[in-house]
Amino acid sequence: MSLLITGSIALDTVKTPLEEHTDQLGGSASYAAIAASFFTPVNLVGIVGNDFPKPYLNLYRKHGVNLDGLQIATGKTFRWSGEYEWDMNNRKTLSVNLNVFETFQPTLPAHYRQTPFIFLANISPQLQLHVLSQVKKPKFIVADTMDLWINIAKVPLLALLKKIDCLILNESEARELMKETSLIKAGKALLKRGPKFVCIKKGEHGCLLFGKDLFFSAPAFPLEDIHDPTGAGDCFAGAFAGYLAKAGKVNHQTLRKAVIAGSVIASFNVESFSLNRLKTIKPKDIRARYKSFRQMSHFDVA
Amino acid sequence: MSLLITGSIALDTVKTPLEEHTDQLGGSASYAAIAASFFTPVNLVGIVGNDFPKPYLNLYRKHGVNLDGLQIATGKTFRWSGEYEWDMNNRKTLSVNLNVFETFQPTLPAHYRQTPFIFLANISPQLQLHVLSQVKKPKFIVADTMDLWINIAKVPLLALLKKIDCLILNESEARELMKETSLIKAGKALLKRGPKFVCIKKGEHGCLLFGKDLFFSAPAFPLEDIHDPTGAGDCFAGAFAGYLAKAGKVNHQTLRKAVIAGSVIASFNVESFSLNRLKTIKPKDIRARYKSFRQMSHFDVA
Repeated sequence: MSLLITGSIALDTVKTPLEEHTDQLGGSASYAAIAASFFTPVNLVGIVGNDFPKPYLNLYRKHGVNLDGLQIATGKTFRWSGEYEWDMNNRKTLSVNLNVFETFQPTLPAHYRQTPFIFLANISPQLQLHVLSQVKKPKFIVADTMDLWINIAKVPLLALLKKIDCLILNESEARELMKETSLIKAGKALLKRGPKFVCIKKGEHGCLLFGKDLFFSAPAFPLEDIHDPTGAGDCFAGAFAGYLAKAGKVNHQTLRKAVIAGSVIASFNVESFSLNRLKTIKPKDIRARYKSFRQMSHFDVA
Repeated sequence: MSLLITGSIALDTVKTPLEEHTDQLGGSASYAAIAASFFTPVNLVGIVGNDFPKPYLNLYRKHGVNLDGLQIATGKTFRWSGEYEWDMNNRKTLSVNLNVFETFQPTLPAHYRQTPFIFLANISPQLQLHVLSQVKKPKFIVADTMDLWINIAKVPLLALLKKIDCLILNESEARELMKETSLIKAGKALLKRGPKFVCIKKGEHGCLLFGKDLFFSAPAFPLEDIHDPTGAGDCFAGAFAGYLAKAGKVNHQTLRKAVIAGSVIASFNVESFSLNRLKTIKPKDIRARYKSFRQMSHFDVA
């Protein structure tokens, strides 16, 4: 089944201690759409300026991403720049220029409105609610968020939680939103705020999936050299939603497999800047790494 | 097969935001010995003062721990006190009084010297080497350590690494000892220093086991209420070594199962102060929690 994805589309300038790359394709929706495209057809909703490079549009197309919901506005594309320390768990944002994204209020194309699976990638909860209000009886809604919205848009964020099926966020965000130091308590507290499932991303420690009668702990892939962590969380969430859309049904079995599919795609993404690694992977690469995940978490009965 | 355990035996005073308990049974060897006793016979090597409470000696005996190597010296038992914050990942040591432990230089009883499995619980690497020099052709040697020894006894610690089969340490210690921010790099670097296997404990994030052609990532049990984290790492390591001694052979399969056995016992231990929870558990409780670990990390083929 197809998957509607909305979020930001940006031109990123990313600096690490070893490399710097300027105006690379980025934004939560870009990462999520390419990640999901390995599993299911994607309907993209977003905005770019008329400076947006054609090769990036072609990359979406090559991955079968439907661009009928992509608005190309007069002006500049959203730009973000950030810098990583030697310990790539630490990042500082250097600049944010919203440009055409500042006034983005999408109207969904008619043929998008019955997309069965929805992924609201990281943008303001107000925009996520705006998009959600235009879709008809979706089967399953996944939403991502970030610390910024917990700080400046907590009320709409809590309203959003009541309308979605699955929330994805990272560990510090989960702790902060629920005011709990224990991730287990934070995960269970979030379930009481609306979503049927909560997925807490823990970076190099993997992730946790919570649901009624469901607790799943997934490892992270043991990468020694991470070139650019930007977009890893967006790739995880996009591939997670994409896998579920492909399965067409959501149950404990498909959810667990979706978490691993998300972890697989995210682990590839950090191996190079922007979407450069995802551009090169093939279905057989995904299958092989999925198998590695099974190998590294398997143990026999007592 | 039997397991020799040496380490500290202490009377602990532990304060949490909700409770305080004085002169409770503690020390790395106490936790490790009781944890291992669920799997295999234990030969304990340690020292206490003549103030050591009889009920604690009886607890060892009840768990079948051989006390022929326990020296009861004139003087006071080693005492430690510490305080946990609301976030129990943070602990501060309030006082340390080595007492009779200060001059501890054990001579192993003759019948201990051919014990096939050895666990050197957390004490100075000099003492660990001293004990090791007295055992004859052990089959498998596991050692634990802590940040203190990395800081004040790095040379003997590195010498120890060349004589053991498996090192167990926590994530900050692994990073510090190898000067690596990546745990994957730290784990692989430690393998080059001598041990065939390295186990990195990550607290609430589970643990990682490294070996040649071996990488295993184990989850932690999702506990909501942790009453006292003291000794969790010692219990993990003791049960890990105890499980291997019971199996009598060390291969990738038994190592993975030993990691889970260690995680199971550690997860029980934090549910109450001192060894109060381990005193109450039965083999069926261990089996049931082991099964939960399988359930929470299982996912199907792609």
